[in-house]
Amino acid sequence: MSRPDTPLLDTVASPADLKQFSDVQLKTLAGELRAETISAVSETGGHLGAGLGVIELTVALHAIFDAPKDKIIWDVSHQSYPHKILTGRRDRIRTLRQKDGLSGFTKRSESPYDPFGAAHSSTSISAALGFAVARDLGGACDGGLGDAIAVIGDGAMSAGMAFEAMNNAGHLGKRLIVILNDNEMSIAPPVGALSSYLSRLYAGEPFQELKAAAKGAVSLLPPPFREGAKRAKDMLKGMTVGGTLFEALGFSYIGPLNGHDMGQLLPVLRTVKERATGPILIHINTVKGKGYAPAENADDKGHATAKFDVVSGKQVKAKSNAPSYTSVFSRALLAEAAADAKVCAVTAAMPDGTGLGLFAERYPSRCFDVGIAEQHGVTFSAALAAGGMKPFCAMYSTFLQRGYDQVVHDVAIQRLPVRFAIDRAGLVGADGATHAGSFDTAFLANLPGMVVMAAADEAELMHMVATAAAYDDGPIAFRYPRGEGVGVDLPDRGTALEIGKGRMIQEGGRVALLSFGTRLAEVEKAAEALSARGFTPTIADARFAKPLDRDLILDLAARHEALITIEEGAVGGFGSHVAQMLAEEGVFDSGLKYRSMVLPDTFIDQSSPEDMYRTAALSAADIEAKVLEVLGVVRLDAKADRA
Amino acid sequence: MSRPDTPLLDTVASPADLKQFSDVQLKTLAGELRAETISAVSETGGHLGAGLGVIELTVALHAIFDAPKDKIIWDVSHQSYPHKILTGRRDRIRTLRQKDGLSGFTKRSESPYDPFGAAHSSTSISAALGFAVARDLGGACDGGLGDAIAVIGDGAMSAGMAFEAMNNAGHLGKRLIVILNDNEMSIAPPVGALSSYLSRLYAGEPFQELKAAAKGAVSLLPPPFREGAKRAKDMLKGMTVGGTLFEALGFSYIGPLNGHDMGQLLPVLRTVKERATGPILIHINTVKGKGYAPAENADDKGHATAKFDVVSGKQVKAKSNAPSYTSVFSRALLAEAAADAKVCAVTAAMPDGTGLGLFAERYPSRCFDVGIAEQHGVTFSAALAAGGMKPFCAMYSTFLQRGYDQVVHDVAIQRLPVRFAIDRAGLVGADGATHAGSFDTAFLANLPGMVVMAAADEAELMHMVATAAAYDDGPIAFRYPRGEGVGVDLPDRGTALEIGKGRMIQEGGRVALLSFGTRLAEVEKAAEALSARGFTPTIADARFAKPLDRDLILDLAARHEALITIEEGAVGGFGSHVAQMLAEEGVFDSGLKYRSMVLPDTFIDQSSPEDMYRTAALSAADIEAKVLEVLGVVRLDAKADRA
Repeated sequence: MSRPDTPLLDTVASPADLKQFSDVQLKTLAGELRAETISAVSETGGHLGAGLGVIELTVALHAIFDAPKDKIIWDVSHQSYPHKILTGRRDRIRTLRQKDGLSGFTKRSESPYDPFGAAHSSTSISAALGFAVARDLGGACDGGLGDAIAVIGDGAMSAGMAFEAMNNAGHLGKRLIVILNDNEMSIAPPVGALSSYLSRLYAGEPFQELKAAAKGAVSLLPPPFREGAKRAKDMLKGMTVGGTLFEALGFSYIGPLNGHDMGQLLPVLRTVKERATGPILIHINTVKGKGYAPAENADDKGHATAKFDVVSGKQVKAKSNAPSYTSVFSRALLAEAAADAKVCAVTAAMPDGTGLGLFAERYPSRCFDVGIAEQHGVTFSAALAAGGMKPFCAMYSTFLQRGYDQVVHDVAIQRLPVRFAIDRAGLVGADGATHAGSFDTAFLANLPGMVVMAAADEAELMHMVATAAAYDDGPIAFRYPRGEGVGVDLPDRGTALEIGKGRMIQEGGRVALLSFGTRLAEVEKAAEALSARGFTPTIADARFAKPLDRDLILDLAARHEALITIEEGAVGGFGSHVAQMLAEEGVFDSGLKYRSMVLPDTFIDQSSPEDMYRTAALSAADIEAKVLEVLGVVRLDAKADRA
Repeated sequence: MSRPDTPLLDTVASPADLKQFSDVQLKTLAGELRAETISAVSETGGHLGAGLGVIELTVALHAIFDAPKDKIIWDVSHQSYPHKILTGRRDRIRTLRQKDGLSGFTKRSESPYDPFGAAHSSTSISAALGFAVARDLGGACDGGLGDAIAVIGDGAMSAGMAFEAMNNAGHLGKRLIVILNDNEMSIAPPVGALSSYLSRLYAGEPFQELKAAAKGAVSLLPPPFREGAKRAKDMLKGMTVGGTLFEALGFSYIGPLNGHDMGQLLPVLRTVKERATGPILIHINTVKGKGYAPAENADDKGHATAKFDVVSGKQVKAKSNAPSYTSVFSRALLAEAAADAKVCAVTAAMPDGTGLGLFAERYPSRCFDVGIAEQHGVTFSAALAAGGMKPFCAMYSTFLQRGYDQVVHDVAIQRLPVRFAIDRAGLVGADGATHAGSFDTAFLANLPGMVVMAAADEAELMHMVATAAAYDDGPIAFRYPRGEGVGVDLPDRGTALEIGKGRMIQEGGRVALLSFGTRLAEVEKAAEALSARGFTPTIADARFAKPLDRDLILDLAARHEALITIEEGAVGGFGSHVAQMLAEEGVFDSGLKYRSMVLPDTFIDQSSPEDMYRTAALSAADIEAKVLEVLGVVRLDAKADRA
């Protein structure tokens, strides 16, 4: 693949090199950085649109501020690829999101220019405020402590956490810079009244500055803009104007600026750097996917892409052999919704990621995208249930962590029948540790009254959706992974399962393998290999971590020398509940070779999910080795097989 | 104790009875309701100030709206005692917060007039929106679905969750009523820029209505106020005015009203009921503790009180024999802060509850009350740590659930040395199930790199504070309960413990009791009784749930017939980690009488902590019975002893 010509970029080893450049050169550099970003992502796949939207901002920030002393914190950090290119990581930029390569997110362990990692949204202002306070308290860290700058999108700004941070920053009054990158998109178009509010600001006069600005911040604007600002102020006389929301929170407001115009960004940032005292919000308008037509024209503005051809923009999609779990959930929910008008759905800014896109089209009045607002989404679901609806609250495992207290306090304690559809359970691949769904079984299964299921394959998922729709006695959750199913036949509609009953997969001897979730396929692979060695294990699919199928599990324990549980989750989940029950029943008293295969006690970096599960020692080979080890079969080649 | 004369209140069996009353009678009723509330709380103790602040609002809401069809949702619901008195629970109001009595909070299972329980703050708008949406979708529930009304304080409004809900409500545009009860207090005075903003509104013209109102909501005001409103609008011409924050979020705004003036509340609520279409925010100003001088004059405005004498306001405080864990934490942290200028503290609106009051006085620049904003608080702490400070993030166990994703994503994954001081771990008494700290060990101990400790007594707590201050290799948490310590001698300053090392308490035979946390005192009591029967158990204090003291635990397992873990937490925590380790080491293969005593799989209603632990089967008698059962000692009197 031919690489773009980037003569100026080629001279940049670190942000310090930008200090010598003229404004004209910086503009040229931005063009080259854009081309390099497109070229790199075309080879690796990843998040393209977000980075292209902040090319000019990235150049301007690094030209004017002094990273790593100044802490530039990219919210979510999908948009950090250009930043990585400028901060000494260009040589590895084509390893993005790959095993042993650069993370798709900012990461403290990767570079001193990443002072605070991100991946989940809306953390940047809290983080920037922490650095600003540490600076003023005489804290010390690598590179020192200078300005704290959060770059946050309009979608991320709608999360409660961002509001909490703004409220605190306004209160403390410390010098702090928040750049609101308003592209009227997060992954999907943002929702909520704040979004319309920002649109109204957007439609207003450029460089308007509002009440706070009128009182003093005019002087913050660089001279060429002062006159414009005064003119805008005159125009706004007698009107209630935008920006007041931020002013109410104690921020000075400057904007909106054209975030692709270096002629606006550079002087404003220079002036802010020179003169800002308290918290200041700079509102810039940008276009997600800017400067690359296939991204700009895409519905998702090139949010996430596979490898692609730069000229045509055509993505190289891997062939899929089976439908994704997400699409099966979508199909199953549509079937339930068609049968029951009470079925409704809640997503937190992930209508497509969670497979609710079709549902939203077909049942718009029953589908709620609450924006990046998991806390609200969970409690809103609880009240929908209290009002007699059947809400499916569809969230990624890792994001449900955002609504945990609401799951406990509003759903579980009140025993309200919210159906939690937990996507991306287990390890997720290229998004790495920050997106792993490792903890949901543990944090849900110990809540009184909660039913917790995991689907072993895509047909099981359909049954679990039907089970959840039919179950009205309290909260119920079902988890399923990222990626494709195993290719089993699918019914038109699922059949409700009996609560708390697992299923036998095969009868064998000596060892029982008790699987919870989609490791079942690996268990079956391991069982084949073991059978070939003369050790055919019994296999069961637990289906439920709560309530446990006591009869099944006690029977397995009674009839086998060893019982091994396997799950895609951390300790504290399914296996722990099994162990608790076995202990309580006195099963360990007289001896049972019990083992619980869980995710290891480490955060696992991005790779393919298969490779990550090998790292986690949860592959078929690991299960086979565990059985042989438990049975005391010497297997000298085990380690060699793993390597 | 003499009861107040309440002739009108005596005629009220349900809110329907208020419909016949004249406005004058409603005002009289408010007076009687206030007297009854004071009288009841003087007998039970509980939350007094919040209820006194909403006496008039409670009467007005029930006079005008039709509960239980109309859903009145009290945020936090400390202020719901008067509501309980009016909604058929007056006969039990003097059992508030007592075993088998009324809950101190709204509770669905207690009354149809409590459509959505509360206890943690800032959930009410999400809940009200859920009911409003369910209503419009044809949902059905007991009593039907009418108006949805959230009553939320200014402190609670500062939480991100409330912002998320407002943003969604404004977006959906459904008829929904939010009453902002602005008393400029939560438990402590509220913090944040929003609070100053509300104060500015407060200082403004009464009945001012802002841009949205100017466009149409004038007609929402009852006739007597129209002229005032127009006058206010004229006055505000050309100014950026308050209320715009709510308008930016899509709400119509009316206020501020005097929330103690029935002459203002009744007509405004009547007009709103008659004419509101979309979301509307009614801003009322009230005085916490209103109408009872000892409450109004108290620093906390009578937030929470013991039983008291109505005339003098003097509280009947129980004698304490030992300092509370909270005060010991306070003392220990002061000692660490004196020794190290990097030690700082973060609380989420609980400076006194978490014992940081003194710290804030002595080190104001190092103490941060972030308001009701746990998400921000945790990430802010993470960045303080990244900036070289030593933050102690002090939260109640139950509230830390609000910041769980931030603990995972911002602290644990980045391995930042945030010190989590987890107060109110375990069962908490009168606040009941919603405030129980049951899950923290489970949800923290499975996070890679997290150190998790529990203090067995108050001297141990001092050592753990010192341990946390000294430990800089990653996050560390220590938990301790509500209430008094056991009365051990306290050092001036704690001594750092060796990470991952427990301690032997006594050597015995056959059974080893391995305690994690303050159940140690009960374990010792049980051991005494067992010794009297000739079964002296070994006792150890684990100190760490993570990393486990493997050597100690494996040694206990090797030398005893039975090993029993005891903790004040749900399954998935300490015991589960011990079981996982024992299983992995093959200890169960040849038999071990292993048991794990944890909180049961139920939410336990309020009572004394001692009684709640009996209900949880975690008292000394339960431990003794468990040992005898495991040893196969027939003990016919066991059940009788428990009863």
